[in-house]
Amino acid sequence: MSYVMNDAASFADESADGFVAAHRDLVRRVRGGVARATATPPGQVAVVIGGGSGHYPAFAGLVGPGIAHGAAMGNVFASPSTQQVVSVARAAASDAGVLLTYGNYAGDALNFDQAQDQLRAEGIPCQTVRVTDDICSAPAGEQEKRRGIAGDLVVFRAAGWAAEQGLDLESVAAVAARANERTRSIGVAFSGCTLPGADEPLFTVPPGTMAVGMGIHGEPGIETVPMATARDLAELLSSRLLAERPETAGGTSKVGVIVNGLGSVKSEELFLLYGALVPLMEQAGLTIVDPEVGEYATSFEMAGLSLTLVWLDDELEQAWRSPAYTPAYRKGTVELSTVATALAPEEAASDVEAIAAASEEAAAAGVQVLKGLDAIKDVIDREADELGRLDAIAGDGDHGIGMQRGARAAAEAAAAASAANAGPGTVLVQAGDAWADKAGGTSGALWGLALRTMGQQIGDAEAPAAGAVAAAVSAAREAVQRTGKAEIGDKTLVDALVPFSETLAALTSERRGLAQAWAEAAAAATSAARATADLLPRLGRARPHMEKSLGTPDPGAVSFALAVTAVGAVLDAYDLKEN
Amino acid sequence: MSYVMNDAASFADESADGFVAAHRDLVRRVRGGVARATATPPGQVAVVIGGGSGHYPAFAGLVGPGIAHGAAMGNVFASPSTQQVVSVARAAASDAGVLLTYGNYAGDALNFDQAQDQLRAEGIPCQTVRVTDDICSAPAGEQEKRRGIAGDLVVFRAAGWAAEQGLDLESVAAVAARANERTRSIGVAFSGCTLPGADEPLFTVPPGTMAVGMGIHGEPGIETVPMATARDLAELLSSRLLAERPETAGGTSKVGVIVNGLGSVKSEELFLLYGALVPLMEQAGLTIVDPEVGEYATSFEMAGLSLTLVWLDDELEQAWRSPAYTPAYRKGTVELSTVATALAPEEAASDVEAIAAASEEAAAAGVQVLKGLDAIKDVIDREADELGRLDAIAGDGDHGIGMQRGARAAAEAAAAASAANAGPGTVLVQAGDAWADKAGGTSGALWGLALRTMGQQIGDAEAPAAGAVAAAVSAAREAVQRTGKAEIGDKTLVDALVPFSETLAALTSERRGLAQAWAEAAAAATSAARATADLLPRLGRARPHMEKSLGTPDPGAVSFALAVTAVGAVLDAYDLKEN
Repeated sequence: MSYVMNDAASFADESADGFVAAHRDLVRRVRGGVARATATPPGQVAVVIGGGSGHYPAFAGLVGPGIAHGAAMGNVFASPSTQQVVSVARAAASDAGVLLTYGNYAGDALNFDQAQDQLRAEGIPCQTVRVTDDICSAPAGEQEKRRGIAGDLVVFRAAGWAAEQGLDLESVAAVAARANERTRSIGVAFSGCTLPGADEPLFTVPPGTMAVGMGIHGEPGIETVPMATARDLAELLSSRLLAERPETAGGTSKVGVIVNGLGSVKSEELFLLYGALVPLMEQAGLTIVDPEVGEYATSFEMAGLSLTLVWLDDELEQAWRSPAYTPAYRKGTVELSTVATALAPEEAASDVEAIAAASEEAAAAGVQVLKGLDAIKDVIDREADELGRLDAIAGDGDHGIGMQRGARAAAEAAAAASAANAGPGTVLVQAGDAWADKAGGTSGALWGLALRTMGQQIGDAEAPAAGAVAAAVSAAREAVQRTGKAEIGDKTLVDALVPFSETLAALTSERRGLAQAWAEAAAAATSAARATADLLPRLGRARPHMEKSLGTPDPGAVSFALAVTAVGAVLDAYDLKEN
Repeated sequence: MSYVMNDAASFADESADGFVAAHRDLVRRVRGGVARATATPPGQVAVVIGGGSGHYPAFAGLVGPGIAHGAAMGNVFASPSTQQVVSVARAAASDAGVLLTYGNYAGDALNFDQAQDQLRAEGIPCQTVRVTDDICSAPAGEQEKRRGIAGDLVVFRAAGWAAEQGLDLESVAAVAARANERTRSIGVAFSGCTLPGADEPLFTVPPGTMAVGMGIHGEPGIETVPMATARDLAELLSSRLLAERPETAGGTSKVGVIVNGLGSVKSEELFLLYGALVPLMEQAGLTIVDPEVGEYATSFEMAGLSLTLVWLDDELEQAWRSPAYTPAYRKGTVELSTVATALAPEEAASDVEAIAAASEEAAAAGVQVLKGLDAIKDVIDREADELGRLDAIAGDGDHGIGMQRGARAAAEAAAAASAANAGPGTVLVQAGDAWADKAGGTSGALWGLALRTMGQQIGDAEAPAAGAVAAAVSAAREAVQRTGKAEIGDKTLVDALVPFSETLAALTSERRGLAQAWAEAAAAATSAARATADLLPRLGRARPHMEKSLGTPDPGAVSFALAVTAVGAVLDAYDLKEN
């Protein structure tokens, strides 16, 4: 559990502020995360990493000479938003472009990919390398589906080294991708962790056992076995990794090794395990190069550890041995004074776009949108704990808190826009961007996308008719499905969104009033959300978490149904122009 | 608890081996601990630190350029033995002498002081600076009684810097002592830790509360209060330290700051606390120099943290800002290649002295001594868990395991000596040295001293008469009291040792046979050990742990009574020369 905090909702932000205060010589705070305190030299690719908070030193602790140029810092166990990634990348980029590299999780992939699109659209060259080192998270033939864990360090180091050699963006990406291809990790968990402000652990491991392959957010592993001696544990971990020696490794006998502690397994134990590994590596004919034993990717106070091997070639060995100087990772001799020119404290770029006042009618509709968003905020505030509990059954338990952050930020942004007499389209766009930015994670990105899409569709020219609202919802539904890649029956938000959208479209096309049509559509969404409990999920290696949620409704569908039902109640009470 | 181990008894050794294997570029294993991989340059004072295991990076993780030249590594939560300290100091010393510096705990003080005596006797100049930064462990007027916690880092850094400036031993000691005088720490604990192999936590903190001032081995603090927000915690910690601003600090407004995590309070929380401290330091008119936020002195997975302030002068600021490069602490630019000449892998100096064969009679007496030591080993093996439980009431719960390590090592050394036909004196001396070396802690040092003293007194010339045995026991008693500084009634080993010695002396002077006299003396010891439960301890700030042990017999007295009773049973069965 977390012992030191003021408020769970502001935990990640306050922690990030303290981190920057403690390391102002090395990093500066930028919107969405941190960047090096020094400017990226012209011609040098900027390596931008990132992910959720709670994994220190991943990710901000790895920003500095020899590793990353910037880190997007999401909320607790939640992906940074698209805007956070974009903002950090802009702050870190010189003229040579940006490499985005991060552990492969759905929310991160979604947001970093959208950020890549946006950066390219802005004329900033951008490439991506996802870290997929966790061999327990998908079988050998589906490496691209694997999660990223402590192997992050290998890939980030390779990318940072390549960038500082002056390689161009494609070459830096190629080095990082090769490092990832040749890196394999396996973890074991002995106990779970409790997120800041939570009363219960996010997940648990039965006492006396260890969960082989459990992820750093409690994602299910491949088996739970009795705890073993250090010697047997070393044998278990190393034999599984050695069995996955990459084909591309050729004849190399040199490996980099990471023994990574997740939180409560302390240095004395990690060293003991490393001692047990040394003879096993020798027996396997491998030579260990520069072992790393410590905490590189953690999960609050979770008790667990992982072993990482990277089969080195000459270039990767050079990268692995190269000097670095970041808040949490320091190696060799870095001439700090000559790394780059220190930046003057940067003026925060103004992110507030001027909001144009709309017509009186449109502004009144904007007020109605605001009321709807306030209703969503209220119901999510009330149900956040319950949504978190629901999510903890199969996921990382952050759905409630993420929705809460998003809905609050959306309502706040909507209020600001509405106060400036914005029309409904602008209110929705502002609300959507704020939601995505603050909520983080997959659902935050999708909610933000949905609201933004609706806003763009509705526009500010006039108060929208019922059919226009239905069309906007359809457009949002399409955008969410296209981006989230989920189908009906996948046990996601989409299971409730699709019947909602279809019912609304059908009833408004029959010229039913918006309030009535919306109420019936919300009822359809509620019914569909409940039914997700009965779905036979398409189980598979790619979605092992679903196994745990059999018989449980999907929290994303539930929160969606709650939200649209709450909006329906407001539509009853207020006088929106109908048909 | 510890999740990674093979055997609790070998945990610290195996961990140390793994540590050295992971950091062979920086440290080398020497008998008793580690030293830098490079030789201490001629003319440079060697800074030797040390303490129990379980506090990583204290102590071995702080060996390297900028900090220490060597670290004596005791067993889990147990002081290194005198021989360990001597051995590490010998390995680290050049011609300029050795500064011993360590956290002020009874066992450490005992062993390091004996080591200092021995080093001086060998012609190696030696000085000592004990770290006493924990303001909750004794009142302001009795600073020399305070324990050392994370302030270790400040003092070690100052000593290491001064040594590398080429200052002489007295000057290095003076800088370290000034750093200690100007350093204050305060800790809070949220939960205890469970030692390797133990089933129960060594100590606990009631859920929802925090123990202000609790020590890193669970030593009682000054009060237990409800958990607070990070802001209030920062206020609590900083206000208590600011109220203890050292008189010697003069008008300085510069402070070095350490926010130290004990194990399960993770980086995110430590940074958050640091963020809350910054405005408080500003309000106090202080400027923070180079804050350190992380783990510097831990206690396995104990949940807790401490705040340290050092009021800097120009010289201490230079030391605090200076570069360092150790396994766990790296700062600034250290030219690794030019630090010193790397050592060739050193031949382990042979520590085995040739054992002279004694007369047949004396060798037979040696065999009897071995039987007695075997009997002690057996009874301690049987009762180790119970002794640990008894010790956990007021102490750190390691008495059973420490006695076990000591008794086993003593029996083993005695067997080796006896196999070489050694007389009783040599068997006892060998057994005593092995006991002290392996058991660690205060009781290990005292048992080792007692056996060695007896051995020297008895000698190998002939089989000892009963009176000679009683005289040897008296000499051992005197040595233990002189070194351990305990009186009858202090609720220690001495409470049982004194009546044992006196009864034995009285009965043998009446020409009673050794077996009978020993049996009655053992009965007196047993009775006295039981009576320690009824002692009204001399409570005081210096012995706050005694409050917890009211009504509980002292484990040291109990184990002594068990040991001499077991020896008595062997004396009955075997034919030792009587009268």
